[in-house]
Amino acid sequence: MTSLIYPRDAGDPCLDDFRALSTADRRPDRPGGRGLVIAEGTVVVRRLLSSPYPVRAVLGVERRVRELAPELPDVPAYVTSAEMMAEVVGFHLNRGVLAVADRSPQPQVDEILARSRVVAVLEGVGDHENLGSLFRNAAALGVGGVLLGAGCADPLYRRSVRVSMGNVLRVPFASIDPWPAGLDLVRRHGFRIAALTPRADAIPLSSVDGGKIAVLVGSEGPGLTAEAIAAADLAVRIPMAEGVDSLNVATAAAIAFYELAER
Amino acid sequence: MTSLIYPRDAGDPCLDDFRALSTADRRPDRPGGRGLVIAEGTVVVRRLLSSPYPVRAVLGVERRVRELAPELPDVPAYVTSAEMMAEVVGFHLNRGVLAVADRSPQPQVDEILARSRVVAVLEGVGDHENLGSLFRNAAALGVGGVLLGAGCADPLYRRSVRVSMGNVLRVPFASIDPWPAGLDLVRRHGFRIAALTPRADAIPLSSVDGGKIAVLVGSEGPGLTAEAIAAADLAVRIPMAEGVDSLNVATAAAIAFYELAER
Repeated sequence: MTSLIYPRDAGDPCLDDFRALSTADRRPDRPGGRGLVIAEGTVVVRRLLSSPYPVRAVLGVERRVRELAPELPDVPAYVTSAEMMAEVVGFHLNRGVLAVADRSPQPQVDEILARSRVVAVLEGVGDHENLGSLFRNAAALGVGGVLLGAGCADPLYRRSVRVSMGNVLRVPFASIDPWPAGLDLVRRHGFRIAALTPRADAIPLSSVDGGKIAVLVGSEGPGLTAEAIAAADLAVRIPMAEGVDSLNVATAAAIAFYELAER
Repeated sequence: MTSLIYPRDAGDPCLDDFRALSTADRRPDRPGGRGLVIAEGTVVVRRLLSSPYPVRAVLGVERRVRELAPELPDVPAYVTSAEMMAEVVGFHLNRGVLAVADRSPQPQVDEILARSRVVAVLEGVGDHENLGSLFRNAAALGVGGVLLGAGCADPLYRRSVRVSMGNVLRVPFASIDPWPAGLDLVRRHGFRIAALTPRADAIPLSSVDGGKIAVLVGSEGPGLTAEAIAAADLAVRIPMAEGVDSLNVATAAAIAFYELAER
């Protein structure tokens, strides 16, 4: 069990991992692998603790830190007032506790494919909230992993972690590179690649047979590129009412996961 | 065709309908029927124009207002700079145009039921974004209307309108009162009421037979009340991976709409 540490003031260098988090969260240009993994709130911190990411430290109000203390590895657990915590992180954190962890190497695409029956493949999902929601839906609906094509945001970004309710920490993900040529590897693992698109010539989702399937979804605005659709084995659509804009990308993906993962 | 009006400054009383919208949007306590309906952006303004709500006025930058002008009824169309518009509404509006309309009487529950095969029934959906998303999903997936039980937010609130992409303006809705006793009316119209719940004794969604169905969903946190579940005809669940929190309410509803409305 870890021992609690009571920093004297918000300027204490021991708190540097937790400093100005909202600023960092607005820098999507940060090179991958450099930012720390940040978990907010008891639920997500617990999910971090059971993930492969090595936890560096915990910061929170006394009640929250004490609640988690028995589960913590031997890392510093900093206790402050809510006000001092807000001063350090740069905003009021109503969940009362957060933890930071180092990134660790991602699994190989091969490993994810070897142990999945359904995977998600994303192209151009650059919005951290959509990406987080998509991981939450993938976790709930039994998707084995998420493969990131060109133009995707970083799943370990603070906002994605939060919106996913920590599910980015347990649904494995890896990048497909080159894109979309790297999709051949998915096919070699026995997956059919189903591009989700509102195109009228796509077949209804419900008519897809069972078997290993990779659900390929694109960004909400432009959708999948022609190259990505061409690299897929089939094009599938969710039957929709006339004249309605497409669904949000995470919602459309959830419907596909539900339909295809349930079998 | 309407004629364009160029107000001299942001204080001009002719712009009062558009004033301080972000403040108004933070007052969920406002009695229903008193706030104006506000549509932001060309897509949502067009949806407002084809809705039953009587448009009062339009405000936007020149390019956006001119684009819409041929479709506008005989109402004032105010043209300002982006800066002046921001000063009036209280925030920067990157969609460049908005319209306000009066509320109009909602349809009766009876009318909605008479012309639908699938309806959504909500309890305690008090979050405007979830409510807006839910309407967007209902529109896309062919749900005939939304019935509001106890504790639901106002679908015509600005944030709900925006998140729904204007679909609150075209999916009919009405309140069920008293709650949940008023559900009897739904049943008398030949609907079975299916409560969506993660309870293990609920039947999987995919085993629900066809026919008229009312999908009953509760708020994200506490879920449906025991009274609401007791008032339903059956309890249905989305099969989910172990140890995962439930899906977002709008996403769960989308899956139910997809499964039940497609038949």
